[in-house]
Amino acid sequence: MPSTKPPSGTRDFLPDDIRRREYVIGVIRKVYERYGFEPLETPAFENIETLLGKYGEEGNKLIFKILKRGEHESTGEADLALRYDLTVPLARVVAQYQNELPKFFKRYQIQPVWRADRPAKGRFREFFQCDIDSMGSNSPVVEAEQLAAVSEVLTTLGFADFTIQLNHRVLLTAMLEAANVPAALHGDALVGIDKYDKIGRDGVSKELLGRGVEAASVDACLGALEDVSSFERLVSTHERGRAARAEIDRILALAADTPAAQQVSFVPRLARGLSYYTGAIMEISVPDLAGSLGGGGRYDNLVGMFLGRDVPACGFSLGLERIIVVMTERGMFPPSVAGGGVDAMVTIWNDDVRGEALALAGDLRRGGLRVDVYPEADKLGKQFKYASSRNVPFVTIVGDDERAAGTVSVKDMRSGEQQRMPRSEVAAYILRSSRTS
Amino acid sequence: MPSTKPPSGTRDFLPDDIRRREYVIGVIRKVYERYGFEPLETPAFENIETLLGKYGEEGNKLIFKILKRGEHESTGEADLALRYDLTVPLARVVAQYQNELPKFFKRYQIQPVWRADRPAKGRFREFFQCDIDSMGSNSPVVEAEQLAAVSEVLTTLGFADFTIQLNHRVLLTAMLEAANVPAALHGDALVGIDKYDKIGRDGVSKELLGRGVEAASVDACLGALEDVSSFERLVSTHERGRAARAEIDRILALAADTPAAQQVSFVPRLARGLSYYTGAIMEISVPDLAGSLGGGGRYDNLVGMFLGRDVPACGFSLGLERIIVVMTERGMFPPSVAGGGVDAMVTIWNDDVRGEALALAGDLRRGGLRVDVYPEADKLGKQFKYASSRNVPFVTIVGDDERAAGTVSVKDMRSGEQQRMPRSEVAAYILRSSRTS
Repeated sequence: MPSTKPPSGTRDFLPDDIRRREYVIGVIRKVYERYGFEPLETPAFENIETLLGKYGEEGNKLIFKILKRGEHESTGEADLALRYDLTVPLARVVAQYQNELPKFFKRYQIQPVWRADRPAKGRFREFFQCDIDSMGSNSPVVEAEQLAAVSEVLTTLGFADFTIQLNHRVLLTAMLEAANVPAALHGDALVGIDKYDKIGRDGVSKELLGRGVEAASVDACLGALEDVSSFERLVSTHERGRAARAEIDRILALAADTPAAQQVSFVPRLARGLSYYTGAIMEISVPDLAGSLGGGGRYDNLVGMFLGRDVPACGFSLGLERIIVVMTERGMFPPSVAGGGVDAMVTIWNDDVRGEALALAGDLRRGGLRVDVYPEADKLGKQFKYASSRNVPFVTIVGDDERAAGTVSVKDMRSGEQQRMPRSEVAAYILRSSRTS
Repeated sequence: MPSTKPPSGTRDFLPDDIRRREYVIGVIRKVYERYGFEPLETPAFENIETLLGKYGEEGNKLIFKILKRGEHESTGEADLALRYDLTVPLARVVAQYQNELPKFFKRYQIQPVWRADRPAKGRFREFFQCDIDSMGSNSPVVEAEQLAAVSEVLTTLGFADFTIQLNHRVLLTAMLEAANVPAALHGDALVGIDKYDKIGRDGVSKELLGRGVEAASVDACLGALEDVSSFERLVSTHERGRAARAEIDRILALAADTPAAQQVSFVPRLARGLSYYTGAIMEISVPDLAGSLGGGGRYDNLVGMFLGRDVPACGFSLGLERIIVVMTERGMFPPSVAGGGVDAMVTIWNDDVRGEALALAGDLRRGGLRVDVYPEADKLGKQFKYASSRNVPFVTIVGDDERAAGTVSVKDMRSGEQQRMPRSEVAAYILRSSRTS
């Protein structure tokens, strides 16, 4: 007998899980469409060359590789690989359909990605990303619109206490240069700085020293990261740094006219791990979750790897699983989401009335109800018990009396009350009673 | 520069494609929920043992296999495989969660599957299946409800000319036994008979003879398949055949009380290719499509391969791609589906009014509109041209005059007319005008 568990790091989603996921995805999709983002989907796998070399050395190791078909299967050669994120496939799509897509292509994409990571609490091998990306423009309107859209998603879901940190990669570079960190160590330094909230001042200090940054430089950086005015002083001596600082101000000023106004602030120590960012970087968090609910930034060079010329680009990715974890822990789902999938169940009194049961179910469905039919003639008590175990709120009964009179009895499973009525009135009665309960 | 095409046999879905797909999926999901089916999703890959040996020798070869991670990557060992259909994962799920799922678990599942088939017109390596399955009951109510649900899906999508063929595997076995076809050849014979509509009488005859069936048996079978009364005569001598024939009648009688009434009929030569069917089999087709839009049947033994005891089961699978092909060729999509993703675009007159543009966009979005913002200050003519190329029906302009007066000009891109109005009235005006156009 083979194991019946899903593969390590993956999950089966039973009906209640799906209803929660679909609720969140529905809100995300609706808000993103209001912001003019259009849907895109790409295949689950890509040609392996499309993905290799895009995510750094560690990323390469986490890509799931698919064996080439046919006789090559025995050689271990892989020619396809599972989608690792939604950004690289987008860059490929923008290059492939450059003549069909609008100049300022804005897309959302909500699909699973796969990483051969070690599974852990909250870390899966299959998980969903919900991305928006705006191509073709360098304007700070792009960042402001994305911050607004993400804020509206979270507000609509019921989050009131999220914060968005905003920073700029060029500002961080300016700080590192002003602090005399050699360019070759900038990548390492950013990875260390990105951990500030997790490992604190001493942790970052130790890490930077360990990566070969001079003590004086470490002190200069940490001083700047902990005090905005020191930071401003340090980067004000750096021309591109001043320009980046002004860009941050433009984004903040524009965001002030959007739903992100109260949430977003400039945070010098936000660094973000990914290497491909070139401009503004953003990250969203809530107090009761370690790590972020999502993040993003500007990456103006990635499309160039597929197209041969750069296209300005900026994106934001929300993590579906993390949103659901927090919403579940806080009890944020509306009762209707948890309420089960069936409004009424039609019982079957005996084999002779099965056709009439199906016809009654058809009536109720045309009336807009989600209706299950108990599939077999069985003791009524057993059918009630089954409906009750599934949280079905209403059950219909057509016994010999009802049949003779052309009526239907409807049992409210929550109150236990039973009422007899003409068949034509059942759907409206259940709809009305569901609404008032 | 790597290729920017999607991998062979897969597709990128651009916004218009997604809108068509989401429309069809939305109808399918809604109808299936009305019939009491609940959503389920399973991981994209399964442990390789879960899939191997379930789809026959040919099927095994078409399974995409994923390399084991880490040092094993070089050995070519595969431990995971991409989902090949939605039925085997369901059987695993029913075994794994037997204590949590209701006795008569009815689920729908709409997810992609992957097959390493040779790509051809209409045959993809990644495609969507839309399945319903009902577990736990042998009652013909199950088949009748599935036929009704599938009929209602197609009717809701606008199909008026589909037909559903109904047959029973035990009836076919009875016919083969009555025609003295040796049991060892039954599987081969069914594969041949399944091609009747494609290759005709002579083709089937040649194929059955080629597979070793005696000429007299071939004649008996073909005679029966072409004439219902001969068929009935042949199987009436066979006890299990008579019982299966009676089961078909029960399903037809029940279907008469459902939306499937006019569509479904008993067709003795329907065979279906899959080996796991044990009872009723069903297939749905339209005149202008070779092959079927979907099909299904009863498979009472599959869950037993995971659970150790059999569970009655019956399912029906609709092919999303085929439905979309026919709907596209026939022009069946409502105009709103093709209508693009944006209701209005906000122009930007100059950099100083970018904040006001974002605030106006916010107003319109709160009013329920899908709104894009042109991201950069640019010549108005260029912004109009961009909106026109994207089929955006309304464009807003806030120039110096409008700004001074607190008004907004709205240009109807279809008529070219432009009207000035207070900012607070813009959303309602666009909503009203969209509705009447």
